[in-house]
Amino acid sequence: MRVLGVDPGLTRCGIGVVEGTAGRPLTMVGVGVVRTPADADLGHRLLAVEQGIEQWLDEHRPEHMAVERVFSQHNVRTVMGTAQASAVAMLCAARRGIPVALHTPSEVKAAVTGSGRADKAQVGAMVTRLLRLDAPPKPADAADALALAICHIWRAPAQNRLQQAVAQHTAHATKGRTA
Amino acid sequence: MRVLGVDPGLTRCGIGVVEGTAGRPLTMVGVGVVRTPADADLGHRLLAVEQGIEQWLDEHRPEHMAVERVFSQHNVRTVMGTAQASAVAMLCAARRGIPVALHTPSEVKAAVTGSGRADKAQVGAMVTRLLRLDAPPKPADAADALALAICHIWRAPAQNRLQQAVAQHTAHATKGRTA
Repeated sequence: MRVLGVDPGLTRCGIGVVEGTAGRPLTMVGVGVVRTPADADLGHRLLAVEQGIEQWLDEHRPEHMAVERVFSQHNVRTVMGTAQASAVAMLCAARRGIPVALHTPSEVKAAVTGSGRADKAQVGAMVTRLLRLDAPPKPADAADALALAICHIWRAPAQNRLQQAVAQHTAHATKGRTA
Repeated sequence: MRVLGVDPGLTRCGIGVVEGTAGRPLTMVGVGVVRTPADADLGHRLLAVEQGIEQWLDEHRPEHMAVERVFSQHNVRTVMGTAQASAVAMLCAARRGIPVALHTPSEVKAAVTGSGRADKAQVGAMVTRLLRLDAPPKPADAADALALAICHIWRAPAQNRLQQAVAQHTAHATKGRTA
């Protein structure tokens, strides 16, 4: 399972590609950041994010995309840029038929550190350990993107089991009704 | 000057194309709504918005795009969808080199009704009158998109004069310094 994680942002959009399955050691395939100039107009920044993500998709051909779920409780300006960058990422995936999952920051932190309230340093340390890297990936957005991909690989089996259970339950219920 | 106005949204994205110049009667070129199913996943909804807007751009070849500026003070869920749909619109324009302007809802209302606090009905009535239509365009998102395009046509000369004034002032200042 190859997952491309996206920590969306206009100034820095973190990208991390991880390969593996739950319960096995994971491998980092690639990590980086798509940057856009803060003084460019919004349309051109979104275009630069699109081109950057397209390059990553072309090069690494992930089967899944995991994007950080954006909330609007935080800083207004930042949230708008984050929501817009995440829209571009999801659009790029949808165009290629790549399924997209959204994970909240606390789900990601809980997945890689065991605590939903872990700080950046802790997330960076665990990403380094789990992917057997020499040093934490920088900037933090890049490490966060890898953490998103790891979170997705580890959560996927549970989500699949849940979907299977729901599907079975629905099948049973339907059977019961038609019998 | 042909302007495509976008009232961004995932469920209904209003589109209105208006042609004209400030101080002259305006013409409606087209109006409509791009809809996406609420039960589809976000990636596919964004893709449907992209395809819809691309069709409008192909068909009407506007020289400018005017998009409603999104604020995050309002309902959290709605604002995220609005921000994401507006990102897709701006991305489509940027890809074609079409300049994009953002106007706030109160700027648009003030432009077409004289009051920044006008209600939907008043905006619809003025759009109908200014474009010499038989009835207000429906749904309201379509009327709002036309209002955005009208607002842009009327504000453009002022913005251009302002830019010229700034450019001249800068030129003078530079001259003064180098003389």
